[in-house]
Amino acid sequence: MDYALSRRMGQMRPSAVRQILKVTEQPEMISFAGGLPAPECFPVAEIAQCAQRVLGEAGPQALQYAVTEGFGPLREKFAAEMQSRGVACAAENILITSGSQQALDLIAKVLLDPGDCVLTESPTYLAAIQAFQSYEARFVSVRMDEWGLVPEALEEAIRRERPKLLYVIPNFQNPSGITLAVERRRAIYDLALRHRIVIVEDDPYGKLRYRGTEIPPIAAMDQEGIVLYISTVSKTITPGLRVGWVAGHPTLLRSLVIAKQAADLHTSNLDQRIVDRYLGDFDGEAHIGKIRTLYGVRFALMEQCLTEAMPDGYSWTHPDGGMFLWVSAPEGVDAGAMLLQAIERKVVFVPGRDFFPDSSDCRHFRLNFSNATEEKIRVGITRLAEVARLALQGVGG
Amino acid sequence: MDYALSRRMGQMRPSAVRQILKVTEQPEMISFAGGLPAPECFPVAEIAQCAQRVLGEAGPQALQYAVTEGFGPLREKFAAEMQSRGVACAAENILITSGSQQALDLIAKVLLDPGDCVLTESPTYLAAIQAFQSYEARFVSVRMDEWGLVPEALEEAIRRERPKLLYVIPNFQNPSGITLAVERRRAIYDLALRHRIVIVEDDPYGKLRYRGTEIPPIAAMDQEGIVLYISTVSKTITPGLRVGWVAGHPTLLRSLVIAKQAADLHTSNLDQRIVDRYLGDFDGEAHIGKIRTLYGVRFALMEQCLTEAMPDGYSWTHPDGGMFLWVSAPEGVDAGAMLLQAIERKVVFVPGRDFFPDSSDCRHFRLNFSNATEEKIRVGITRLAEVARLALQGVGG
Repeated sequence: MDYALSRRMGQMRPSAVRQILKVTEQPEMISFAGGLPAPECFPVAEIAQCAQRVLGEAGPQALQYAVTEGFGPLREKFAAEMQSRGVACAAENILITSGSQQALDLIAKVLLDPGDCVLTESPTYLAAIQAFQSYEARFVSVRMDEWGLVPEALEEAIRRERPKLLYVIPNFQNPSGITLAVERRRAIYDLALRHRIVIVEDDPYGKLRYRGTEIPPIAAMDQEGIVLYISTVSKTITPGLRVGWVAGHPTLLRSLVIAKQAADLHTSNLDQRIVDRYLGDFDGEAHIGKIRTLYGVRFALMEQCLTEAMPDGYSWTHPDGGMFLWVSAPEGVDAGAMLLQAIERKVVFVPGRDFFPDSSDCRHFRLNFSNATEEKIRVGITRLAEVARLALQGVGG
Repeated sequence: MDYALSRRMGQMRPSAVRQILKVTEQPEMISFAGGLPAPECFPVAEIAQCAQRVLGEAGPQALQYAVTEGFGPLREKFAAEMQSRGVACAAENILITSGSQQALDLIAKVLLDPGDCVLTESPTYLAAIQAFQSYEARFVSVRMDEWGLVPEALEEAIRRERPKLLYVIPNFQNPSGITLAVERRRAIYDLALRHRIVIVEDDPYGKLRYRGTEIPPIAAMDQEGIVLYISTVSKTITPGLRVGWVAGHPTLLRSLVIAKQAADLHTSNLDQRIVDRYLGDFDGEAHIGKIRTLYGVRFALMEQCLTEAMPDGYSWTHPDGGMFLWVSAPEGVDAGAMLLQAIERKVVFVPGRDFFPDSSDCRHFRLNFSNATEEKIRVGITRLAEVARLALQGVGG
């Protein structure tokens, strides 16, 4: 029959990234497309030990229904993690979510009515666009430069659009890799506070810094409860378990808990307890150190290969951490068309267009370096450079 | 600051059941409140073995991001399970969800705009009300009798309200315990088909039958793709892992997948693979047989204790399976007030009021029998009968 879908479904599209991931299963395909961690970094043996300990010591409890807010000891550990990032935080400020994607969904559910304006960086995280779109948000993207969101552009957008939310990824942003400078964080916080706008600070990559010094999150400045800070263990332990969290003011947390009850009752009890044991029994920081070393090498190699191989006219960002580089082609090049050529040559990336919520700029693309071996980075960037040269011919370059 | 919450949050309340669950943690409290499975039935050792096998044989894959649709082999097993329930179903008809609660949320997201009418049984499942409420549905409840939803009342409601969805729990309904008779299923399906209404058939308890013979689900009649059938392993294996599914027409599935991408990317990869191994390596049906035996004894005992102890004027349903009995007090008794008296006597139940989406009928309450030992059922029903007698005095009985 003809199904009468809801209005919101008229705007929603399957994720471009998730569509491209299907292509990556072809043999000999080199993928810079996904945002996948390196599986060789997963602490498989440790997780297996944690699963045994949890099920051996508290099996019936771990397999029963649980409270919506999350497993108490794990909420405490995430609160301590927040404190180590400079944020005043207790367990009651933490809601554990089914990955940080769910935090985005719940925040949208609690704060957004159809047509409400969300300000984002430009470009911004594709799956955040999807989450806010599923509540019929109106997007206005704000100009960035190499130090992140431009406060003057933000102020202008705030005055013009009267937004409900500002969504930012301050560290090694997805997709651009750009980090929001410390003085900009202060300026942005002050603007949001003055105009009573909630800031959603999404920080999945903060621990993956390869150079430079750590910058405190915007949440560390927040005395007024306007920041909802979200993070995850997906990049530091494993994404397969779907454990993230949102930290914020208890009033907002209460509404988020009600929304989560209706959404999935609670996050997997077993997964939460495994993560809790892992953080309690093993040296998580040392493990992150290993991830940083591996990704740092891959990142430096990709930068070097791009410098050596890419034709004139292409430029890319120079992140201090994270998992992504953002490449800009000369005007007239269409990264979507480039992708088709690239698939023929067995290399894939994500065209930038879907990362812009309110424009159709299509000469950028995103490269992931965490999930490819050094050999694949060398070969893949060589193939990519060939495609880049062909694309230049297409525009008469 | 004053947060400007979304309109939908104005209607949403914390779950009464989840609030009462906090009281149940008091020592010596006997709880008939939750919908908890008996933890002594959880296959803890088997789940631990499955976790070891999954992590030993495919650790890096199990800890990586996964496709939104769900783990392929598990989709196949759930499709086979659907076939065994009489439904024509293949793996591509299955979306794996984070518990069946998420299926309700996603269905609402895909089909409901604010003000759209959802028809429900009266009473109906509290957390389904919450899920649909979070998309600002308008509820109209339809009269039931001991054979379930009354088709004439349904037809009248359909003509008057032009609903988008009909939500039913055909087997051992939560909260009433009532089963929808086979001829009613046919009549309801025909009505829904004639009026192009999607039926959401929620069947978490179908396998927990203690007497009588199995009745095919409404989905088994569906040639036109109007039924979305949802179920879960929460009652047959464990609720702690949050694995449910929705089976339906590929067109609707596609939209549900897009909605799930935005909601949580995918269900825990490890949990899905553990459930898959469990269903592959162990005799799940034999395990369900054990659950049925245990719950059947508790159920019969609770019925018997009620018959022996409850004062005149109270009546209750006579389910053929599931986890709940539904008690009706005489007119004038307020089950909410009874609960306060009951808590003093260390026994709790869930007052019925929150199970009615559009009325304030408050003389009913729900009793769960799956989670209490025989001793606790004897003592608890004695205490409850005392409270019931006191309540009669309150109304001059």
